[in-house]
Amino acid sequence: MSDSPLARLARQIEFIAECDRLKEIFRQTVNTQSRRAENDAEHSWHLCLCVIVLAEHANVRTLDVLRVLKMIIVHDLVEIDAGDTFAYDVAAMAHQHEREAIAADRIFGLLPPDQAVEFRALWDEFEAKTTPEAKFATAVDRFQPMLLNCRSQGAAWNRHGITHDRVVARNRHIADGCDPLWQYAEKMLQDIVDAGHLAKAPQA
Amino acid sequence: MSDSPLARLARQIEFIAECDRLKEIFRQTVNTQSRRAENDAEHSWHLCLCVIVLAEHANVRTLDVLRVLKMIIVHDLVEIDAGDTFAYDVAAMAHQHEREAIAADRIFGLLPPDQAVEFRALWDEFEAKTTPEAKFATAVDRFQPMLLNCRSQGAAWNRHGITHDRVVARNRHIADGCDPLWQYAEKMLQDIVDAGHLAKAPQA
Repeated sequence: MSDSPLARLARQIEFIAECDRLKEIFRQTVNTQSRRAENDAEHSWHLCLCVIVLAEHANVRTLDVLRVLKMIIVHDLVEIDAGDTFAYDVAAMAHQHEREAIAADRIFGLLPPDQAVEFRALWDEFEAKTTPEAKFATAVDRFQPMLLNCRSQGAAWNRHGITHDRVVARNRHIADGCDPLWQYAEKMLQDIVDAGHLAKAPQA
Repeated sequence: MSDSPLARLARQIEFIAECDRLKEIFRQTVNTQSRRAENDAEHSWHLCLCVIVLAEHANVRTLDVLRVLKMIIVHDLVEIDAGDTFAYDVAAMAHQHEREAIAADRIFGLLPPDQAVEFRALWDEFEAKTTPEAKFATAVDRFQPMLLNCRSQGAAWNRHGITHDRVVARNRHIADGCDPLWQYAEKMLQDIVDAGHLAKAPQA
């Protein structure tokens, strides 16, 4: 038996209230002004802004911008349970998807069943990174932290001893979703290396 | 003469970097977990989530969800310059639109001219509150702070001595964009009055 309309709305609002927790999940990247750690909710908004500003540069002409935005809006919700995994923490990344899939079951499961399926499919699409929409969403998800890092003298990279070669290896598939954005990023990284804020490679 | 494609992209990225400041604009509402003040970037993300979860309840069947999301993503950017205006601060609200329009000129003016026009039109549409999309965006923009307030024992309302009658007067046009959401909100407000966390009306 399906919910009455009002019971359905109440269930949706419980999901929205639970997702308020995303504002307490802090990342390694710092915001450019206060230099405090960015949280996942702010990050997700900033990615949405990137999408509507930069969609014209996507590798495909027929990008479904609404689906990209939906993916971005929900892409980090699993971190409410699974926590943020730093992009260069190889040990933590080993079991990341497994931990996040368990979180997805619980969190999307708070929604009415049809919507739980829809939102889980958006997250699965984002994780699989095979559609043009998921590739573009991933491109901005990788680019935005690099931008904040470059505008804060490489703060998060330097704190963790991350070097230019690792940043390139981690982020070069930005080009799969948005080739011009990767061209821009390569130049941005070279500039910050030249300015002495990002080491070229580990010391021998 | 229009920008080269790379100069256009660089200009768009300067806009995205400038908008990082939205994360430092704090509101009167507190987040439910940490009870610290919510900032505009987190708030904007939370509204995006409300839109994709609740769009089915809009008063019109033909809601353009992509345009609602675009409006939400940019709706508070003017506060980077104009600051947050508390919804119950009548004195500050008197010149609010004037201050925000000046901010809109500067901030959207950072974009390439065609995109500056597009984004400014989204903000103007949101402010005018006449289209179904703007009415729905306004409905979630009014509902979400009420939800956080109700889930934090009326924290922001009590700090400012706001009573039930003023909350109803300020927020009842949620019904213009989403009638079921206002029905839900009326019940939610009554529950928090009954629980003793929101005064019914000013003491005589």
